[in-house]
Amino acid sequence: MMLYIVGFGAGSPEGMTIAARQALESSSLIVGYTAYIDLLRDLLPDKELASTGMRQERERVELALREAQQRTVSLVCSGDSQLYGMAGLAYELSPSYPGAEISVIPGVTAAFSGGAVLGSPMTSDTALISLSDLLTPMEKIVRRLRCAAEGDFVIALYNPSSKKRADYLRRACDIILEYRSPETVCGYVQNIGREGENYRIMTLSELRETSVDMFTTVYIGNSDTKIVNGKMVTPRGYRNV
Amino acid sequence: MMLYIVGFGAGSPEGMTIAARQALESSSLIVGYTAYIDLLRDLLPDKELASTGMRQERERVELALREAQQRTVSLVCSGDSQLYGMAGLAYELSPSYPGAEISVIPGVTAAFSGGAVLGSPMTSDTALISLSDLLTPMEKIVRRLRCAAEGDFVIALYNPSSKKRADYLRRACDIILEYRSPETVCGYVQNIGREGENYRIMTLSELRETSVDMFTTVYIGNSDTKIVNGKMVTPRGYRNV
Repeated sequence: MMLYIVGFGAGSPEGMTIAARQALESSSLIVGYTAYIDLLRDLLPDKELASTGMRQERERVELALREAQQRTVSLVCSGDSQLYGMAGLAYELSPSYPGAEISVIPGVTAAFSGGAVLGSPMTSDTALISLSDLLTPMEKIVRRLRCAAEGDFVIALYNPSSKKRADYLRRACDIILEYRSPETVCGYVQNIGREGENYRIMTLSELRETSVDMFTTVYIGNSDTKIVNGKMVTPRGYRNV
Repeated sequence: MMLYIVGFGAGSPEGMTIAARQALESSSLIVGYTAYIDLLRDLLPDKELASTGMRQERERVELALREAQQRTVSLVCSGDSQLYGMAGLAYELSPSYPGAEISVIPGVTAAFSGGAVLGSPMTSDTALISLSDLLTPMEKIVRRLRCAAEGDFVIALYNPSSKKRADYLRRACDIILEYRSPETVCGYVQNIGREGENYRIMTLSELRETSVDMFTTVYIGNSDTKIVNGKMVTPRGYRNV
């Protein structure tokens, strides 16, 4: 049977695609992380839902694959289903679950939904980087930060902080400051698409002194990024065409 | 009044978010590039639609801003409204159009919708790069390719080819081959979400010898990317946790 890996978008039901909604409606079981399953309980009150806690990604994917051998299942990811999501792991584990066919339903990842709140920071070439070193070695993250800064990419940072990694955003800013002006326009968005959504725009040197929580996406502009009417805007040269 | 800058997704009506659909329905005028307006004509037969041709981005945005001084308008972009879209230009031009308030409605950009067709190439840190040098100087594109390759990012390439730029994908592959194995898993998707959608998975050295058209998105995996059951899959270490 079919296993849909569904990107849910930022957190409000309107943020999901029509294809995502259709996949959820056509499923007889929806599996996900507890917080997203709670959101879906109101939206789809008659569905069978199964949730697993944080960091139980492997258990969650195995449950979804096992059930999808018998019936149509949706596995829900916040944002997109690929980027820092479950689609890759589902494909990796799928050879052990014959009969479960995977279909990836993309969603709007946090970088894009948060960027829309800030203005249009991501108009041009962008690097998407997670600061979490749970699954990626820190030296690889540092190398990617260096390369993204050197390449003058717009940078969107996922998982910029946690209790154990309180200084990671500061360390990332220090690396980027080796290549970029301290006046580079930056911003962050908290609780994208959810209650308590808020944003701030600031310079890179101010960002270095800022504490953010794990529900935050951080943006570092490229050398062209500017502030227009209080919004963070990266131009792309159309004005000069 | 309100100007919604609406990311339409990949091209099928199901690929747009519910918020995008609501913005289009609440608008009294929808402005866009001819090809997208034709798609909307069937979907929203009673709406007033206005289209402008390719490369007429500035005219399109100015028309939308001018009309939004009087009524609710949606300006439609393929994929996302920020990335290689019109949101940045709309903010840049907005100070000349008082009374037109901008709201950016994000959409699923081609990298994500195409990635879902290939499998899950974009599970981890990703660089999004356009090979079009109409708006970005070629030396900047080359620098970004170098940095993305050196940083072992998954790379998604937009606008990989055009009549005038037939050899750009080959040149991009040559740059990336300075840093990455010729066996790196790559792929492309044509006509994402539209009639004629198709994909191919190959090595980086094979990609170098491949011709693609302008309706193609190209993916270069990172050093961990592999093929699982005929799909392009980038792992993210969950199996080792």
